[in-house]
Amino acid sequence: MSQAEKERLLEIRNEIDSIDAEIQTLIARRAECAQQVAHAKTQGGQVDVVFYRPEREAQVLRAVKERNKSLISDNEMMRLFREIMSVCLALEQPIKIAYLGPEGSYSHASVIKQFGASAHTLAVSSIEEVFTAVEKGDANYGLVPVENSSEGAVKQTQQALMKTSLKVTGEIELVIHHCIMSQNEKLENIKKVVAHTQALGQCEHWLKNNMPWVEIEAVASNALAAQMASQDDTLGAIASEQAAQLYGLRVLESHIEDSHENSTKFWAIGSEETEPSGDDKTAMIVSMSNKSGALMDVLSSFASRKISMTRIISVPSTDTKWDYLFFIDILGHKKEASVAEALEEVKQKTSYFKLLGSFPTSPFS
Amino acid sequence: MSQAEKERLLEIRNEIDSIDAEIQTLIARRAECAQQVAHAKTQGGQVDVVFYRPEREAQVLRAVKERNKSLISDNEMMRLFREIMSVCLALEQPIKIAYLGPEGSYSHASVIKQFGASAHTLAVSSIEEVFTAVEKGDANYGLVPVENSSEGAVKQTQQALMKTSLKVTGEIELVIHHCIMSQNEKLENIKKVVAHTQALGQCEHWLKNNMPWVEIEAVASNALAAQMASQDDTLGAIASEQAAQLYGLRVLESHIEDSHENSTKFWAIGSEETEPSGDDKTAMIVSMSNKSGALMDVLSSFASRKISMTRIISVPSTDTKWDYLFFIDILGHKKEASVAEALEEVKQKTSYFKLLGSFPTSPFS
Repeated sequence: MSQAEKERLLEIRNEIDSIDAEIQTLIARRAECAQQVAHAKTQGGQVDVVFYRPEREAQVLRAVKERNKSLISDNEMMRLFREIMSVCLALEQPIKIAYLGPEGSYSHASVIKQFGASAHTLAVSSIEEVFTAVEKGDANYGLVPVENSSEGAVKQTQQALMKTSLKVTGEIELVIHHCIMSQNEKLENIKKVVAHTQALGQCEHWLKNNMPWVEIEAVASNALAAQMASQDDTLGAIASEQAAQLYGLRVLESHIEDSHENSTKFWAIGSEETEPSGDDKTAMIVSMSNKSGALMDVLSSFASRKISMTRIISVPSTDTKWDYLFFIDILGHKKEASVAEALEEVKQKTSYFKLLGSFPTSPFS
Repeated sequence: MSQAEKERLLEIRNEIDSIDAEIQTLIARRAECAQQVAHAKTQGGQVDVVFYRPEREAQVLRAVKERNKSLISDNEMMRLFREIMSVCLALEQPIKIAYLGPEGSYSHASVIKQFGASAHTLAVSSIEEVFTAVEKGDANYGLVPVENSSEGAVKQTQQALMKTSLKVTGEIELVIHHCIMSQNEKLENIKKVVAHTQALGQCEHWLKNNMPWVEIEAVASNALAAQMASQDDTLGAIASEQAAQLYGLRVLESHIEDSHENSTKFWAIGSEETEPSGDDKTAMIVSMSNKSGALMDVLSSFASRKISMTRIISVPSTDTKWDYLFFIDILGHKKEASVAEALEEVKQKTSYFKLLGSFPTSPFS
């Protein structure tokens, strides 16, 4: 590097240093504002004040995304502000999040994605316990897996949602990458690849192009596949990086999914209702005595008001009173007039109706 | 909340919004600067340019700590800047970090603490493979556990360090909290507590005060203790939150350590030497044919120059040529005159001498 280049580098670094000093001053001012918010909220003498406002956070992140014209991606920029907010919120009132991980770090990663790294966490060992921890006040919020693109809806969460008095306060989606793993060092030595059928489907092209010789077998879950590969060195498993670590396998290649749509959806649950943020979803469970016509009738209550349905899942009921339960998510907040009307109508049309909550649509993509 | 209070709240929120907009503009400018640094570095036509400079990052974080007079703690403020730098570095050149977790998320957490969440990661299944991944260029840096306050020095790391041509480029210390866990819901139902002897020692007062009736038994590791408790519901184990999750145990109480000194030290390893940052450490391995007097002699080379030794660990050698190997860390960079002199002298006094590298002292506490 020439002298001139070195000087140019030093110049840029000095500029970075002064930018950093400015950013830091602003973050410090932001922290003071957060404390003033806390004072304003408790001034009336109230004890049971809510500091964490999901709708406000979603609005701040959307504004960040809207403003972002930088070299940094929208998601990365929002993540930085997510962390700044998390640090400031911890000054107002540290919040504790109960979570569970069937796949360990994914669940934890989604806690951080939603609440930032400054949130306190409480790991529990079943989905039911996540609910109990929040109900008993051991945690302010809970985070539960709702749906996995490779393994479908999470039954325990559905069952707990039916019983709980807690509300859904937010949604988090986490993209999960597939890896091929084995005890073997080389792809060539793998005779058979095992994985959940959906994972095999998602990696079909990669397998054809990179392991044309290989035999393929579907097993119950990717975690089981990894476990099998840890006991047989002619097997390759498709699973998460986390699974490779858990079972002591070598990751031979990662990101092998053909499309990048392998994700898990989580819901945050809490005891408070969330106010409208301007872009929200509403989740509910309904059931009707007569399935076919009745469902169309329910859906028409939304369609006639141009309310979009983002998800519907039918679940065979364990209760004999109803054949099927439907988990329905729509766009809009229950405080919006047309949504309120539609919900009231649906309530009349159904034999079972439970509103799970209205919450901000996630700004992350 | 009164109307006046509501207005005050809105006012503060508007101020926060405008602070956020300013912060975002500055982060965007910082990203542009980072890209200019990349251009400046590659202008001479060099291909093999080093973008990540551990010493520069340490200096930036120390400046952040120095300036910090805010409500936010030094560590939290540094963490925010750690993330901002990580995002900007990823624009220059994404770096990949190989790591291993005997305890899963701890290792990953230390990667994030050192390199930020924007660094790419590569999970491998042994410490040796972390070294190989960096040596072969599959990863730019590796992260290996060096010492665990409850289980001592990590042998595999020591052995790999003896063989490798890689340098130590940074240190990371991660505080680990003890939890008491069981299949049981209540402490009262636990008859015996199992854990590694050091963990039992660290939680002695807590156990006496909260479980005076309980029998105590030391086992080989905390992970084993958790495994045992997963098979016997009269047992309680002391281990990490992660272990509870892994073995499906209920955490009955966390942070039960009497003092908060339970931590794991990691080293970052890479192929490049690190330049002086102004506050550095130097690590080496030495051995002498005659143990007692010779060691004193080696240490005097440092003491006579007022160079502090921060760590010394003796390891029985697997090689017959030497009885003991010593892992020694001192304060100072090998490019500092007095350190260079001392190292030269030590080299003469020892039968085996390997410099592992000079690297910045971690600004995090």
